[in-house]
Amino acid sequence: MRPEGRRPESGSFASDNYAGALPDVIEAVAAANQGHAPAYGNDALTDRVRERFRECFGPEAIGLPVFNGTGANVVSLRAVARPYDAVICAATSHLNVDECGAPERVGGFKLLPVETPDGKLTPELVAPRLIRFGDEHAVQPRVVSITQSTEFGTVYEPAEIRALADQAHARGMVLHVDGARLANAAAALDCSLAAITTDAGVDVLSFGATKNGAMAAEAVVLLRADLGDGVQFMRKQSMQLASKMRFISAQLETLLAGERWREPAAHANTMALRLHDALTGVDGVRFTQPVQANALFAVLPPGVAEELQRGWRFYTWDESTGEVRWMCSWDTPPEDVDAFAGAVRDAVGRALTPST
Amino acid sequence: MRPEGRRPESGSFASDNYAGALPDVIEAVAAANQGHAPAYGNDALTDRVRERFRECFGPEAIGLPVFNGTGANVVSLRAVARPYDAVICAATSHLNVDECGAPERVGGFKLLPVETPDGKLTPELVAPRLIRFGDEHAVQPRVVSITQSTEFGTVYEPAEIRALADQAHARGMVLHVDGARLANAAAALDCSLAAITTDAGVDVLSFGATKNGAMAAEAVVLLRADLGDGVQFMRKQSMQLASKMRFISAQLETLLAGERWREPAAHANTMALRLHDALTGVDGVRFTQPVQANALFAVLPPGVAEELQRGWRFYTWDESTGEVRWMCSWDTPPEDVDAFAGAVRDAVGRALTPST
Amino acid sequence: MRPEGRRPESGSFASDNYAGALPDVIEAVAAANQGHAPAYGNDALTDRVRERFRECFGPEAIGLPVFNGTGANVVSLRAVARPYDAVICAATSHLNVDECGAPERVGGFKLLPVETPDGKLTPELVAPRLIRFGDEHAVQPRVVSITQSTEFGTVYEPAEIRALADQAHARGMVLHVDGARLANAAAALDCSLAAITTDAGVDVLSFGATKNGAMAAEAVVLLRADLGDGVQFMRKQSMQLASKMRFISAQLETLLAGERWREPAAHANTMALRLHDALTGVDGVRFTQPVQANALFAVLPPGVAEELQRGWRFYTWDESTGEVRWMCSWDTPPEDVDAFAGAVRDAVGRALTPST
Amino acid sequence: MRPEGRRPESGSFASDNYAGALPDVIEAVAAANQGHAPAYGNDALTDRVRERFRECFGPEAIGLPVFNGTGANVVSLRAVARPYDAVICAATSHLNVDECGAPERVGGFKLLPVETPDGKLTPELVAPRLIRFGDEHAVQPRVVSITQSTEFGTVYEPAEIRALADQAHARGMVLHVDGARLANAAAALDCSLAAITTDAGVDVLSFGATKNGAMAAEAVVLLRADLGDGVQFMRKQSMQLASKMRFISAQLETLLAGERWREPAAHANTMALRLHDALTGVDGVRFTQPVQANALFAVLPPGVAEELQRGWRFYTWDESTGEVRWMCSWDTPPEDVDAFAGAVRDAVGRALTPST
Repeated sequence: MRPEGRRPESGSFASDNYAGALPDVIEAVAAANQGHAPAYGNDALTDRVRERFRECFGPEAIGLPVFNGTGANVVSLRAVARPYDAVICAATSHLNVDECGAPERVGGFKLLPVETPDGKLTPELVAPRLIRFGDEHAVQPRVVSITQSTEFGTVYEPAEIRALADQAHARGMVLHVDGARLANAAAALDCSLAAITTDAGVDVLSFGATKNGAMAAEAVVLLRADLGDGVQFMRKQSMQLASKMRFISAQLETLLAGERWREPAAHANTMALRLHDALTGVDGVRFTQPVQANALFAVLPPGVAEELQRGWRFYTWDESTGEVRWMCSWDTPPEDVDAFAGAVRDAVGRALTPST
Repeated sequence: MRPEGRRPESGSFASDNYAGALPDVIEAVAAANQGHAPAYGNDALTDRVRERFRECFGPEAIGLPVFNGTGANVVSLRAVARPYDAVICAATSHLNVDECGAPERVGGFKLLPVETPDGKLTPELVAPRLIRFGDEHAVQPRVVSITQSTEFGTVYEPAEIRALADQAHARGMVLHVDGARLANAAAALDCSLAAITTDAGVDVLSFGATKNGAMAAEAVVLLRADLGDGVQFMRKQSMQLASKMRFISAQLETLLAGERWREPAAHANTMALRLHDALTGVDGVRFTQPVQANALFAVLPPGVAEELQRGWRFYTWDESTGEVRWMCSWDTPPEDVDAFAGAVRDAVGRALTPST
Repeated sequence: MRPEGRRPESGSFASDNYAGALPDVIEAVAAANQGHAPAYGNDALTDRVRERFRECFGPEAIGLPVFNGTGANVVSLRAVARPYDAVICAATSHLNVDECGAPERVGGFKLLPVETPDGKLTPELVAPRLIRFGDEHAVQPRVVSITQSTEFGTVYEPAEIRALADQAHARGMVLHVDGARLANAAAALDCSLAAITTDAGVDVLSFGATKNGAMAAEAVVLLRADLGDGVQFMRKQSMQLASKMRFISAQLETLLAGERWREPAAHANTMALRLHDALTGVDGVRFTQPVQANALFAVLPPGVAEELQRGWRFYTWDESTGEVRWMCSWDTPPEDVDAFAGAVRDAVGRALTPST
Repeated sequence: MRPEGRRPESGSFASDNYAGALPDVIEAVAAANQGHAPAYGNDALTDRVRERFRECFGPEAIGLPVFNGTGANVVSLRAVARPYDAVICAATSHLNVDECGAPERVGGFKLLPVETPDGKLTPELVAPRLIRFGDEHAVQPRVVSITQSTEFGTVYEPAEIRALADQAHARGMVLHVDGARLANAAAALDCSLAAITTDAGVDVLSFGATKNGAMAAEAVVLLRADLGDGVQFMRKQSMQLASKMRFISAQLETLLAGERWREPAAHANTMALRLHDALTGVDGVRFTQPVQANALFAVLPPGVAEELQRGWRFYTWDESTGEVRWMCSWDTPPEDVDAFAGAVRDAVGRALTPST
């Protein structure tokens, strides 16, 4: 899975996890390195982060910093689900396919995967899973988990989230958002973080900062005061409690303060749209998903992806169809986008031209 | 458990987790923030860290960066133990008392705690646990886990470790070291890291950097080539795989290169000895453990700890006996030690003087 | 889910779990009640059962009695899979939908469910799941699990099993059979138990006796000598080790000796075919699965199932389509089949006749 | 651990698990084998058992039949404890030493073992474990688990249980009883089952029938209406839900009706006392525990146990001290007791007589 490319030192389209950290994130981390501070989150900086989470997500919000996205997801689920509960999620969700079974092994939860065209759940897609309540032979549907923006770069509108929340709440269930790229969604929708979480009925959130310019900083955010009893034990037991937490909090504080998260996310989205615009209408480039955040998915003529990967880094998403993923980051330069678009056009053009 | 003190901004004797990071650790992290790098450890810096682990621990050593100590311990155990295996450890070990049941819940392992006078296992103490091999009703002893330096600030000599390793190997078992403070032990013994691990027969190690001047960086280190098949899956499944791993690797690289770990660890040890020396022979100060690394344990006259805690940060370790822990760090200033020693002497003196 | 019927004391078509035990099973249990016998399977009767498993499944077979089918499945999987392995199974398998998440919670395994038309996996259906070997972000496909006969009453031919075994073995994987109704399949195919297990490449088996006339007796059967190291610990740890095991072994011994399992299974199959024959061609009765063992699945006109359930016990399988399941047992009387067929014909007839 | 003896067909002193079943238990099982009955406990016989549990343990009692004692214990704990809770128990408890880590692996719980002289907890012994409430680094004490009668054959008086219950309840904790031999205790105390459970403040019970004359039948009994939400899912998920449950219920019904449990338990106790009386005062026989139920523990001169085991079945309990366990059963004949006592006297006498 390690894509090859000629320019490892420069930008790539492989993943927003390949990007570094925002300069001010690094500065904040360095600034946090002053003297002693109580460990495990009992420090002033983490107190400030807790306040930031309340500012961003409402007065009931409780934010708990963790190390990574898988940790945030599993702790979030453990905080709201009983040992015999199940989690309904898209078949393509990170939770289902990219966490090496952590939800099952660490959480003990069965996932109920749902096939979707675009990585997005809908009440109609969820409904067939809402069965067997009270039947002791079956795990009990308890959580609906959606990813915002999705693993396919698509974005839920607030009303779409509200519909899922209402459906879940009507059955005594909760709505979880894997917000590894929540900032990209909020930037795309030009709305606040609360507008697509608390205000839309979301109950618990995995808040992601790493992909949007942090080094390693995520958080579990409980959005309702009556949820998540004992979550601090779940975090520790799930091995997601940092001792020198101020260094994680410094990253979160940077991104949360004054909506600092918006600009890098918006930039990544803009670069994705720029790439999309540059390749729309190009013969041989078929986009397979709408471009709504910072990811693009496309199918190219046979052999073209491999040729491009000699010069650029990106993933082939589906070996069977040849579908590729191009991911833009907070630091993707527009010149890279333009150069890459040119390279794609050239390669596709050569591929479609009958050799003479 | 949040100790109160008047000087939160300055040094304290609460924990080496209260200390910040070494300046060069911060610099290395900042320096790692250059352009794009493959995620999940497929970057050049992490390659270099892997090489450093081989340098420090021998050619068979495989080092896998993780986030924190609990994670390092649980992944280490999961890498070498079967689902029905048990782990023999000191009753006072971090594994047993400070990980909120992560070994049991995430690893599924039963711990077999052993009472010790000083936090150190010996073959004699371990022997009674080496029973019921092959008995299906009992978990199977598979790992002996020791902490170096221990939670009581005591240090295993290489020969003591070798004896435990030989005992374990003779029964087909493995020896694990929780090396959250391994550097302090190596500094105290004036030896290499390998001398108290690989060369002494240790099989798997939790290597700690955080307490010794990193921000958040630990590692699972497999020391024998025939152990730990599948450990990379265990790390991911245990939610300890960092996406932007270079930022963790930068910290490890800094501490491992040129034995950079030695100086801060030695300093912390020296400060502990300085405090010990200053208080040895003082009436009313009874040290309960030998001072061999960077921790001191003592019992004071009733009320003295509480009085001191109004001005200084440290933990009361055992509420029932009033035993206190004083922990020195890489950044503890000698002036703090001297001032604190004076404060202790004064407070003890007042306590022992009959009021008139 | 408790079907109502007017004749609870007589036969029903609800489940082969509603049937009692074979008279000779009861007699064998009573006969086993002589004096003292070593506990936990160290008794002579259990020794004999172990020999019976070798007779039936080949000289490498190791049979371990357990209590129930879920236990047999989970212990079987735990015996052959590592903590980060995954199990490919039909979406409709008992493992996936009727074990309340025991595979995930007790085993820690992720299941990879596959949609099938008839409850049967094929190499073509399995192939898309054979991906991401070596990718640490993904659980590793390790077990293919099939049910024989399936939850839909369909039967795998030996060649179909062999094809799945070959596919699995080519990737270093193993083939598990949930044989809760293995006897029904062997009876339907008129072959030995080995012909559809050991001889067809199966590696590990959940052998079911309960549904075929035992009271509560199943077994984990390892079919290859190189598999299942430590399985006896897995059984005990999974709480499936009986203390007075002779009483379970007596049941297994009865059914295994002299192919005693064949007659009751064949009878159940015959009754299913009798019911199928009686209703084939009846307007308004649409069978949704081929009838190959002891189960029938059909769709009836709206309201007919509910009317029939006032007099007979059977399950509505799929509320959304109205599909019903009729299950025949070792003790289903032919008269019941004929009477039930008549009742169905009458009810369907009334439903299809326009009221005047 | 398989004791050798010359008379496997007759009584032994190895274990009450070596004894068979009461004749009326077998008869009840045979009688339950009439026609079809709803599976999974939805049958009339299981309804009757539920009523019996209410009769025996009070109107709030909910009894759930399970297969074995380990299952009863783990389901009981899962019913009342949260994932980060801990269970305080005697170091010698079955839970701690004879369940192959099922509480840790299946339940995920950390056990906090307490050393005791006689297998019995007291409030004084429990008190040091009641620490660190609210400390996220530590598992939270939630359950105190005692065994009645204990693994050492000792018996808790009602007032002793009440004291433990009051202590637990004062901290918001619950008291669990592993009642694998509850009947022996009630018979020894000449009291009802409720007197040492519900009426003494016990919250949840593992009720044992197997050792007291059943084949394989235990139960989880919730004694307080406000406990155990979701327990039926825990039972199924823990693989302890029997499909043809009537055959387990028949055993429980037999023992619960009209206090049928009392006579076999009292007999076993009487035989233990008879053996104790016959050997009291015999030089070289030192009883290590008071004989209060059906077990005896003694230390014999070196070599005597091995000599006796050539003719009689019993376990050497502690290899290091040579302590042996003699267990009496519901079917132990007085003649066996007398003959065995004679054999012990003879062997001890020979051992203590200087050879000439």
